[in-house]
Amino acid sequence: MELWFTEKQLTDQEEASTVSFSVKIKEMLYRERTGFQEIAVFDTYEFGKMLVLDGIIQLTLADEFIYHEMITHVPLRAHPAPRSVLVVGGGDGGSVREISKYPAVERIVLAELDQKVIEVSRRFLPELGAAFSDPRVEVNIINGVDYVHSMKGVFDVVIVDSPDPLGPAEQLFGATFYQAVCEALTPDGIMVVQSESPFLNRRVVRQVCENIKQSFPGFYYYLAPVPTYPGSLWSFAVGSRQHNPLEQKNAFLPAGTRYYTPEVHQAAFVLPPIIRSIFG
Amino acid sequence: MELWFTEKQLTDQEEASTVSFSVKIKEMLYRERTGFQEIAVFDTYEFGKMLVLDGIIQLTLADEFIYHEMITHVPLRAHPAPRSVLVVGGGDGGSVREISKYPAVERIVLAELDQKVIEVSRRFLPELGAAFSDPRVEVNIINGVDYVHSMKGVFDVVIVDSPDPLGPAEQLFGATFYQAVCEALTPDGIMVVQSESPFLNRRVVRQVCENIKQSFPGFYYYLAPVPTYPGSLWSFAVGSRQHNPLEQKNAFLPAGTRYYTPEVHQAAFVLPPIIRSIFG
Repeated sequence: MELWFTEKQLTDQEEASTVSFSVKIKEMLYRERTGFQEIAVFDTYEFGKMLVLDGIIQLTLADEFIYHEMITHVPLRAHPAPRSVLVVGGGDGGSVREISKYPAVERIVLAELDQKVIEVSRRFLPELGAAFSDPRVEVNIINGVDYVHSMKGVFDVVIVDSPDPLGPAEQLFGATFYQAVCEALTPDGIMVVQSESPFLNRRVVRQVCENIKQSFPGFYYYLAPVPTYPGSLWSFAVGSRQHNPLEQKNAFLPAGTRYYTPEVHQAAFVLPPIIRSIFG
Repeated sequence: MELWFTEKQLTDQEEASTVSFSVKIKEMLYRERTGFQEIAVFDTYEFGKMLVLDGIIQLTLADEFIYHEMITHVPLRAHPAPRSVLVVGGGDGGSVREISKYPAVERIVLAELDQKVIEVSRRFLPELGAAFSDPRVEVNIINGVDYVHSMKGVFDVVIVDSPDPLGPAEQLFGATFYQAVCEALTPDGIMVVQSESPFLNRRVVRQVCENIKQSFPGFYYYLAPVPTYPGSLWSFAVGSRQHNPLEQKNAFLPAGTRYYTPEVHQAAFVLPPIIRSIFG
């Protein structure tokens, strides 16, 4: 018997999916519908263990480190001395794992909607979920939008590690939310959001850019390949109150990264014309 | 009715494919089996027209320019004054189109095994195939290995724009062939070869590196994302007799590129640890 998982990928072009990506499965380790979404964990031949939410691949062990290193180390090394960091979403623990490599970070707050994602990650994906045992981590099971609106001037870095902009996550791509994040940051704080594929989701990327620019004096955009995400290249958008994220003002460099280096950090901000043209 | 094309992607991990990529088809424009391979041209919803050889996507109009700009402009701008250029494979005309942007190039030779690929491209993919009408282009319908062995010291740049290393194309990844290319080059000539995915085909990449190093004093490796190729990121290997391809010694810069810029050229050579580790 052959078991395959297929992701019908969403793009700007058509209402229904016209592109799909399929992965042969060794074993389905877990599957459950929570009040928020359907969670599944598979063991795959090519990519090792894989977390799927509502039919969309969130991570595989073969490439999650690229995404998680790039969404965390770029802002954490751009800010001169981050002590307090908020992750919105990120219940798998991958971002928390990377943030916990900074000894000077005193407080790592997670605002995750679905407690079950954290439980599943701790149980089936300890490569990421084990990060929750760091005593600096404070987990809040809450709508990230509500949490951010309740905070003022407390975080040096906010990382929006969200799913695609569908259902409840759509708010996490809106101008109102980015304004609230800006207010939740310290005066020289930095926000990074995962901002989809610059090839397949150009409309989303353009909207994120316009929304961030409404609240933040500095907008920046950088790239990293994530093989199991749609469209071959993933993107991250930065809203910065003061620091230029290309400057790498934090002298601390975490050891043992598999994708991130200071040179990769610089190169990730180099945008080809086809991507620059998203921003008009 | 829905028509989908599925590519079963080949990787290092398993004999049989465990990953596949599917594209919804508007129309099948052409399909024929030649003496060498099965050629198909589709019109797709997401990526426009698409050329498929033996079930493997060779190009789509949505992203072919990334591949073709990066396989040509990097060596052509690294060599101080390329006048004579050979393309091995490349019957679609995409590499020829980019090379023909250099007024100082006097001679563009193509060594393609299957005349039918050129005919199909001229007829169905004029966005690439029209390049063959440049009077500087000389088409040879010949096994690229045989052609290269017959040439000594005549080309400033050789571009190996080959399919995957299966069937006849496998020779184009071998040490004997690279030695012959080295001898076909002028004393300061540069070779670039498409070298598969650094995520899914690490074994091929390592072998190409070792084989090139046997003949060339300089080995270099660079990256570009090609959304419709397996594994999200594509790679190119350079064998250079003298010039460092990072130096961009050719002052001529072609206008109107959609992916390539001098900054992208530099950034493409920045390798993350997970990719550097291929080379031990």
